[in-house]
Amino acid sequence: MINFTYHNTTKIIFGKDTESQVGDEIKKFGNRVLLHYGEGSIKKFGLYDKVIKSLKDAGLEVFELGGVKPNPRLSLVKEGIKICRENNIDFILAVGGGSVIDSSKAIGIGVTYEGDVWDFYTGKAKVSSTLPVGVILTLPAAGSESSTSSVITNEDGWYKRSVGDNIIRPVFAIMNPELTYTLPPYQTAAGAVDMMAHIFERYFTNESNVDLTDRLSEATLKTIIKNIPIVLQDPKNYEARAEIMWAGTIAHNGLLGTGRIEDWATHDIEHEISGIYDITHGAGLAILFPAWMKYVYKKDIKRFAQFANRVWNVEIDINNLEKTALEGIEKTKAYFKKIGMPVSLSEANIPDDRFEEMAKKAIENGPLGNFVKLNKEDIIAIFNLAK
Amino acid sequence: MINFTYHNTTKIIFGKDTESQVGDEIKKFGNRVLLHYGEGSIKKFGLYDKVIKSLKDAGLEVFELGGVKPNPRLSLVKEGIKICRENNIDFILAVGGGSVIDSSKAIGIGVTYEGDVWDFYTGKAKVSSTLPVGVILTLPAAGSESSTSSVITNEDGWYKRSVGDNIIRPVFAIMNPELTYTLPPYQTAAGAVDMMAHIFERYFTNESNVDLTDRLSEATLKTIIKNIPIVLQDPKNYEARAEIMWAGTIAHNGLLGTGRIEDWATHDIEHEISGIYDITHGAGLAILFPAWMKYVYKKDIKRFAQFANRVWNVEIDINNLEKTALEGIEKTKAYFKKIGMPVSLSEANIPDDRFEEMAKKAIENGPLGNFVKLNKEDIIAIFNLAK
Repeated sequence: MINFTYHNTTKIIFGKDTESQVGDEIKKFGNRVLLHYGEGSIKKFGLYDKVIKSLKDAGLEVFELGGVKPNPRLSLVKEGIKICRENNIDFILAVGGGSVIDSSKAIGIGVTYEGDVWDFYTGKAKVSSTLPVGVILTLPAAGSESSTSSVITNEDGWYKRSVGDNIIRPVFAIMNPELTYTLPPYQTAAGAVDMMAHIFERYFTNESNVDLTDRLSEATLKTIIKNIPIVLQDPKNYEARAEIMWAGTIAHNGLLGTGRIEDWATHDIEHEISGIYDITHGAGLAILFPAWMKYVYKKDIKRFAQFANRVWNVEIDINNLEKTALEGIEKTKAYFKKIGMPVSLSEANIPDDRFEEMAKKAIENGPLGNFVKLNKEDIIAIFNLAK
Repeated sequence: MINFTYHNTTKIIFGKDTESQVGDEIKKFGNRVLLHYGEGSIKKFGLYDKVIKSLKDAGLEVFELGGVKPNPRLSLVKEGIKICRENNIDFILAVGGGSVIDSSKAIGIGVTYEGDVWDFYTGKAKVSSTLPVGVILTLPAAGSESSTSSVITNEDGWYKRSVGDNIIRPVFAIMNPELTYTLPPYQTAAGAVDMMAHIFERYFTNESNVDLTDRLSEATLKTIIKNIPIVLQDPKNYEARAEIMWAGTIAHNGLLGTGRIEDWATHDIEHEISGIYDITHGAGLAILFPAWMKYVYKKDIKRFAQFANRVWNVEIDINNLEKTALEGIEKTKAYFKKIGMPVSLSEANIPDDRFEEMAKKAIENGPLGNFVKLNKEDIIAIFNLAK
């Protein structure tokens, strides 16, 4: 186990009707709120009215910026920064999923920084302060409600880049599983893949002796794997929605990475695909992760066999651990398929003519990943395994 | 899953040599430090000198109060409060295990309160502020380094009572597994039982549909169960010491109780025993928990069968779940015995002549527990099962 620091300050407010507490929670931090949201689904199901009422009841002044798209754009972030500055806004409320939260985080760090907010995403500047950001989560997937990261797409060149710092963890996350009842099956499943991928990125490590985090990771994966088919059948199953929602936070709040060296190559590769083709992040991960696993598993067959056994209940063949390992990878892929995700680039209508370009862009800042270091040729090979 | 709020603000600084960071960490909060510790073991192995050096290097003024005993006493807490007030101390550093930390927490809330600090422990007053408390952990067991609770013994009547509030979580916990190398086997094992008991208190709930926290609990239990025999054989095994240390925090930082109704009857009963007989808390729990389990398991045989299967690898006998459940309880008891803990009151030289008195005292504020509500007669029956 390697040395680590873990400091997760996000207050989780979980359960039925918790969104009505939002005004009182914000009041502890500020008075002038930017309400940031997506393309209007919050208005369809009554959530918007409920939130506005809570904010007004708490005596807060509310400004609004909707229109966040999946793979949130830098241009809207800049618009948000402008609104905050012009109106002396002191709190940002994200109502939505990972895209809205990531956009809110970007606005938060942008407002207090004199330069171009994109500097944080290229590594040119380091985050040192932010406006406080609060969250009402409507799509469990990205884990951004309690994470240290924000991923933004710069339309100028379609670069999708991330920034990570403890400072940008939201101050609170309100999580009512009922708000996820209306999620379409595709979004539900893509969310599950995103959660599972966050765990995979931490699980496949070269750090030995990581018993506790291995087992906590397996526990979280098993919970997601069990509950997703339940909600795909029965979208208003509160208990299963609750398990998934809380699991999505645990998957990416940093706990499962403590003491380990994490990987993140597959996420980085996926960013190149979704940067260009605008595919749902979770779908991109469903395509890429089994391919990545097949490409790298020989680095640590025992770890992949453990994964197969403990997560997918594959019996360990002690005379052929490689077979066990490969069965685990196949089970992963079959599960993604079963819950309605694409598992090849062709299923997602992604052609094979830009592999070279994407791979080149992916390694602009050096090779990807830590479990196995990936260079351009490796990434192209993974694209080919995912064709 | 029931609604919950989870807000754990303790910064965990984990790994080799991390104690040398203590001065810089404290500097963020204050300048005048009360260094609080136990009966001198920190001076035996060089830790004291290292800590003093870090504090002095950071330019902090240091005051000292040693002498915390296991089952920490109210009188020493009051002495600490006096020292803090007289010297305008603005930070308390606990160097030790749960007793030292609990005593530090008590001093912290006592300093900022005009009345008698014991009021918090009797429920007469509610915690509303504290001096910040930081921790260098030397004994992984109580989980107090990141918990909301403090347990203090009032020598006037030997009442052992607890207080819980989010406000009293330590601001940081420095955890270097190397500092636990010198722990005697008995303390190591008693610490393990304490951790496991913290999980049991949460695991045995009537709340159904708690998949994620069930599995996270099982993961943490399995990690402790695997690693304790390793360090009993090989006390300087860094990796195993690290797993145990981090597991001890997870066991009691609140995560495993999210969405559940917790029990805590066994802890309350144990407090009566260790209040009178001054037995190690973990040893008291090793004696009482199997007896409690035997007394209550019929309330939810399926849950006990799940526990037996997932934690102790007992094969589920689908035609006789009760047998499976009982095997799990036997395995728990056998494990405690194997690691050197007493599993009966007589082994700990505790006579049977004060059961009535202890049971009566235990329920002074009403019946104990939530999984099964326990009255005086139930508690006496549990004592008899533990004889």
